[in-house]
Amino acid sequence: MKKVGIVMGSDSDLPVVEKAIDTLKEYGVPYEVHVYSAHRTPVQARDFAVHARERGFGVIIAAAGKAAHLAGAMAAGTTLPVIGIPVKSSTLDGLDALLSTVQMPSGMPVATVAIDGAANAALLAVQILSVEDSALADRLDTQREKNVEKILAADIKISEKY
Amino acid sequence: MKKVGIVMGSDSDLPVVEKAIDTLKEYGVPYEVHVYSAHRTPVQARDFAVHARERGFGVIIAAAGKAAHLAGAMAAGTTLPVIGIPVKSSTLDGLDALLSTVQMPSGMPVATVAIDGAANAALLAVQILSVEDSALADRLDTQREKNVEKILAADIKISEKY
Amino acid sequence: MKKVGIVMGSDSDLPVVEKAIDTLKEYGVPYEVHVYSAHRTPVQARDFAVHARERGFGVIIAAAGKAAHLAGAMAAGTTLPVIGIPVKSSTLDGLDALLSTVQMPSGMPVATVAIDGAANAALLAVQILSVEDSALADRLDTQREKNVEKILAADIKISEKY
Amino acid sequence: MKKVGIVMGSDSDLPVVEKAIDTLKEYGVPYEVHVYSAHRTPVQARDFAVHARERGFGVIIAAAGKAAHLAGAMAAGTTLPVIGIPVKSSTLDGLDALLSTVQMPSGMPVATVAIDGAANAALLAVQILSVEDSALADRLDTQREKNVEKILAADIKISEKY
Amino acid sequence: MKKVGIVMGSDSDLPVVEKAIDTLKEYGVPYEVHVYSAHRTPVQARDFAVHARERGFGVIIAAAGKAAHLAGAMAAGTTLPVIGIPVKSSTLDGLDALLSTVQMPSGMPVATVAIDGAANAALLAVQILSVEDSALADRLDTQREKNVEKILAADIKISEKY
Amino acid sequence: MKKVGIVMGSDSDLPVVEKAIDTLKEYGVPYEVHVYSAHRTPVQARDFAVHARERGFGVIIAAAGKAAHLAGAMAAGTTLPVIGIPVKSSTLDGLDALLSTVQMPSGMPVATVAIDGAANAALLAVQILSVEDSALADRLDTQREKNVEKILAADIKISEKY
Amino acid sequence: MKKVGIVMGSDSDLPVVEKAIDTLKEYGVPYEVHVYSAHRTPVQARDFAVHARERGFGVIIAAAGKAAHLAGAMAAGTTLPVIGIPVKSSTLDGLDALLSTVQMPSGMPVATVAIDGAANAALLAVQILSVEDSALADRLDTQREKNVEKILAADIKISEKY
Amino acid sequence: MKKVGIVMGSDSDLPVVEKAIDTLKEYGVPYEVHVYSAHRTPVQARDFAVHARERGFGVIIAAAGKAAHLAGAMAAGTTLPVIGIPVKSSTLDGLDALLSTVQMPSGMPVATVAIDGAANAALLAVQILSVEDSALADRLDTQREKNVEKILAADIKISEKY
Repeated sequence: MKKVGIVMGSDSDLPVVEKAIDTLKEYGVPYEVHVYSAHRTPVQARDFAVHARERGFGVIIAAAGKAAHLAGAMAAGTTLPVIGIPVKSSTLDGLDALLSTVQMPSGMPVATVAIDGAANAALLAVQILSVEDSALADRLDTQREKNVEKILAADIKISEKY
Repeated sequence: MKKVGIVMGSDSDLPVVEKAIDTLKEYGVPYEVHVYSAHRTPVQARDFAVHARERGFGVIIAAAGKAAHLAGAMAAGTTLPVIGIPVKSSTLDGLDALLSTVQMPSGMPVATVAIDGAANAALLAVQILSVEDSALADRLDTQREKNVEKILAADIKISEKY
Repeated sequence: MKKVGIVMGSDSDLPVVEKAIDTLKEYGVPYEVHVYSAHRTPVQARDFAVHARERGFGVIIAAAGKAAHLAGAMAAGTTLPVIGIPVKSSTLDGLDALLSTVQMPSGMPVATVAIDGAANAALLAVQILSVEDSALADRLDTQREKNVEKILAADIKISEKY
Repeated sequence: MKKVGIVMGSDSDLPVVEKAIDTLKEYGVPYEVHVYSAHRTPVQARDFAVHARERGFGVIIAAAGKAAHLAGAMAAGTTLPVIGIPVKSSTLDGLDALLSTVQMPSGMPVATVAIDGAANAALLAVQILSVEDSALADRLDTQREKNVEKILAADIKISEKY
Repeated sequence: MKKVGIVMGSDSDLPVVEKAIDTLKEYGVPYEVHVYSAHRTPVQARDFAVHARERGFGVIIAAAGKAAHLAGAMAAGTTLPVIGIPVKSSTLDGLDALLSTVQMPSGMPVATVAIDGAANAALLAVQILSVEDSALADRLDTQREKNVEKILAADIKISEKY
Repeated sequence: MKKVGIVMGSDSDLPVVEKAIDTLKEYGVPYEVHVYSAHRTPVQARDFAVHARERGFGVIIAAAGKAAHLAGAMAAGTTLPVIGIPVKSSTLDGLDALLSTVQMPSGMPVATVAIDGAANAALLAVQILSVEDSALADRLDTQREKNVEKILAADIKISEKY
Repeated sequence: MKKVGIVMGSDSDLPVVEKAIDTLKEYGVPYEVHVYSAHRTPVQARDFAVHARERGFGVIIAAAGKAAHLAGAMAAGTTLPVIGIPVKSSTLDGLDALLSTVQMPSGMPVATVAIDGAANAALLAVQILSVEDSALADRLDTQREKNVEKILAADIKISEKY
Repeated sequence: MKKVGIVMGSDSDLPVVEKAIDTLKEYGVPYEVHVYSAHRTPVQARDFAVHARERGFGVIIAAAGKAAHLAGAMAAGTTLPVIGIPVKSSTLDGLDALLSTVQMPSGMPVATVAIDGAANAALLAVQILSVEDSALADRLDTQREKNVEKILAADIKISEKY
C-alpha cells in the first residue's frame, strides 16, 4: 500500500497532528511523520515533496499555522494529492491559516480540511488510497457503520431521557 | 480509469464548474456532470453518492454557494474522496460557502479548494486518480513543466521590458 | 397541541440545547429530543423530517456547529417551519455555524436564531404554535410582562444605587 | 387565514421586499405592506406590532439594512413570530444587517433568513401558517415537487450536454 | 450643569458600565443610571429618551451587547447626542454589537466608542458638555496633562531600565 | 454659535464629506473645511486641533479611509468632541477605517459614525451644539418631524399600492 | 547603490506592481523585475532569493494574491529585508493575501504593506536603502516636503471654496 | 552601527515588546526603548521620530494595540524605515491593530509584521541594518543555520518516534 507522508511546520503542531497519526494507525495505513518548515527548511521540505511519489507515498498531509505555506510548498513539489490542515494559533482563531492553505492559485490545489481537522485529514488520505483498494474501502464502510450506530445509540439515550 | 462525478447545486453554478470540465477533458479523464441539490433533490443527491463507488466513480467534485451543503451531502453518502468548490454568490464574497464546505465535522472530510477554484478541484481529482496510475502522473508532470515554462517566459519578457 | 421536534447533530450539543428543552417545558409544549446527524445518520435525519408533519410535529428545532447542515437537512425534508441554532465550537466563534445555517438557498428557509441561542429557538417555536392557539399566546404575553417587571426592578435597584 | 405583515425600514428596500410579496401572492396568503422605521417612526412601528395579533396577523416579516433594528422592534411589540430579512447596503455586504438581526437577546427571537432572502422570508411565513392549515401545507408540498422537477430537468439537460 | 443619562440593556452590563460612572464622578458631572431594554421595556426606554432634554439631560450614553439596539432606540427618541458602547458578549468578540451600534441609518447618528469603551463614552459626554462650559474644559485639560505625565514617567522608567 | 471644523485626510474624500457640509448648511451652523493629513501634514493637523477651542470651534469632524488616523490625531490635540467618519476605500469595504477610527484607547474618545456616514456626522455635531442652544434643538425637532412625515407618506403610498 | 528586486507571482500582478517600478524610477534606485511563482517556479524563486545579496540586491519586494506565499518564499531564501505586497484578487478583497503575507512565523519576517500598496512597498525599499545613504535620505525628505505642499495647496483650495 | 528605536504606546505593551529587545541583544544591535503614545504624548512621539535619523537611529519599531496609530505617527515624522507590531488586545484578536497598522496611505509605508510579532520586528530591523553591514549579515546567516538545525533535529526526533 502507498504510504501517507505527514509533515508539520513545527513540532508545536504535534498535539494537533497526533489525531491524524491515530487515524492512520486505526486503518492500518503506513505513514511517515516529519517536521519540515516551508520557511526554515525549504530545501528539505521540497526534497521530500519532489521524491514523495518515487519513495512510495500516495498522499501528503501538511499541517501549519498562521501564514501556513507548508501545504502549498508540498503541492509545488509533487503532483500527488496534498491535504492541508490549517492549525489554529494564538490569534485570529485559525482564519489566517485557513485562508493561507485553501486559497491556492490555479494549478496547485491543496485539499483543505477544517481548522485543526487532523482526523479528517487522515481519513481523507485513507479515502484517496481506497479508490483503488477495495479492502480499504470496506474498512471505511465498516467504520462508518460503527459511527452510525454510535449516533443511533446516542439518539436512543437522549430521546428516552428527555 | 475511474470516472469523476461533478455535481452542482444549481445550473447557475455552471459558469464556475465549466473550468473543472475543461480540465478533466484536458487530462482525458472520464466524467459525468449532474445537477443535484442537497436541499431540493436530496434523495437523488444521496442516491448518486451512495452508488458512486460501484458505478465506477473514483472521486466526486461538488460545487455550491451560500450555505453550501452539497459537498457535505456527498461525503455523507460515500467513502470516496469528495472535493468541494465553494461558489461565490451575491453577498459575503464566498466566505459563507467556504466555511460551509470546509468546516466539516469529524468523520466526514471534504477536500476543499479555493472559492470558485473549479480548475483546481478537477486537477486535485486527477492527482487523486494518479496515485495508482503512472500514465496520468506523467501527464500531470508534463503539464506542470509546461506551466513552469510559461512562467519562465513571462519572467524573461517582463525582466527585459523593465 | 402540535409537538416540537428538537434535533441536534451530536450529543455534545446537549448543554446548549438544554435551554431549549427548559423553555418548552416552561410553556407546557410537548416535544421530542433526538440526536440526528446530517452527515452520519442522514437517512434517519431525513426520515424524521419527512414524517414530522404526519407524526404531529408543528416545528423542528435543529442545533449544529461548524459546517452546520442539520437545520438545512430538516428543511429539505419537510415544509414545516425549521428553526436553526448555530452552535459555537472550538474555532471561529460560531461564525461558521451561523453562515452555514442562515445563508440557505431560495426555496428552503431556515429560521435562524443567535449563536447558541437555544432559549430563543424554543421561544420562537412557541410563538409559531401560538398563531392559532390563543391560550399559548396568553402565556407568552404573561411571561413577557414578567420579564418587563424584572427589568423594571433592575432599573429601580440600579438607579437608586448609583 | 391569518395575514402576513410585511414591513420595511425604508422604501429603498422595496426591490428586495418585492420577492416576498410575489411569494405570498403565489400562495394566496393575504398580506399588508408597510414602511415603518424603527428609528424614524418608532411609535407607528410599535403600534403596528402591538396590535398585529388582534388585527388578524399571524406573522410579521421585517426587512432592514445596516444597523437593522426593525425586526427586533417588531419582536419587542408582539409575541407573534417575526421574520427578519437582513438587507445588503453599500458597505460590508450585509454582514452588519445580518448580525444586527440575528444576534437578538434572550426572550426576543427573530427568525432570520439569508441576506436579501426575501423569497425565503415569505416562504417561512407560509410554512408557519401551514402548521394549522393543511390546504396550505398541500400547496407547499406541491410547489416543492415542482422545484424537484425543475432540478431533475436541469440535471437531465446538463448531464446530457456534458 | 446638564446631566448625563447612562442606560444599559441589562444589569449584566454593569461591570462594563461602571467605568463610565467612575469617570463622570471624577469630573463632577451629574448623572442618572438606568436599566432599559430596547426590546423588553421599549416603552420605558422611549419615554426616557423623549423626555431627556426637558428633564435636564445633555447627553445619553447607552450600553448594549449582541444585536445592540439600545443606543439606536435612544437616538430615535431624542435629538440630544447619544453615545453608544458596544458590549462584548460570549460570541463574536463584540463585532456584532459594534456593527449594530455604529451602522445607523441617515438621520439617526449614534456616537460610537470602542467595544467595552465605557470610560471613553463618559469622557466623550464630558467633552460634549465642555463645549459651553469652560470650567469643565479646564478640568479636561488638567486631566489630560496628568495623563501626559504618566506616559512621560513610564517612558523614563522603561527607557532607563532597558 | 460655535463653529464646526470639518477636516479630511485627502481631497479625494470630498465626495463623501460634502454631505456633511450640506447638512451643516441646512441647519445654519457655521463651519470651516480643511484638508489635513495625520501623516502628511501632522503639524498643521495638530495645530488646528490644539487651537480649535480658542478659535471658536465646538466640534471637529474628521473623515479618513484605510488606516484612518485623522480623527484620532484631532482627539489627541483637543478636548473638544471629535467625530470620526470612516471612509470606504478600494479594499475591505471600510472595515479598516471603521476599526482604526472607533477602537481608540482609553482617554481619547472618537465619536464614530457609520462608514461613509457624513450626513450623520454633521447631524451629530448639530446635536452636540444643540445641548445649550434651544433654537437649534427646535430646528432638529422640526426636521425630525419632517422625516417622520416622509416615512408616513411612503407608508401610505406603498401600503396602498400592494 | 544596492538594487531592489521586484518579484511577482504572475504577470497578471503587473498593473499593481507598476506603481512600485514608477516609484523606484522616481528615486533613481536601480531595480530588476521578475516573475517568479512560489508554487510554479519554486526553484527559480528560491535561487533568486538565495543569491540576491551576493548579486547586489539590498531589498526584495514580492507581490502576490490569494494564498500569497511568494514574499514568505523570498524571506526563506535570504536574510535581506523582504517587503510583501498583498494583491487583491477576485474574492475576499485581499484579506486572504494580507493574512498569508503578514502572519509569518517567528524567524522569517515579511515587511508587509497595505493591500495593493505597491507604491508604498517601493518607498519602504528606498527608506531601507536610505539608512546608509544620505543622498537618498535627502531625496526622501525633499519628496515628502513636496507632498506636504500638495496637501497645503489642497487645503487652501478647499477651505476657500467651502 | 545605527541604533534601533523601540517605541510602545503603553507600558502594558511591554510583555509583547520584550521579545524584540531580546532579539536585538542577541544580535548585539544597539537600541533605545521608549513609551510614547500617538495620542497622549504626540509631541514627544513626533519629536522622537523627527530627530531619529540625526540621533543615530537606523530603524524604528513601534508597537501598539486597538486603533494602533503609533507606527503611523512615527512614519509621519521620519523617512527612516518604520516597523509596526500590531498588539492583540481584549477584543477582536488583534485584527483592529493589524488593519490600523498595515493599511497606511500612499507615501507613508509601515513595515508591518504579524500580530504580536515582536521577535520578527526586531529581526527585520537587524535585516535592514545588515544591508550595508556584512558582519551583521553573517550573524543572521549563522543564526538561520542554527534554526535549520533545530528543525532538522526535531524532524529526526519525531520521525523516529512515530
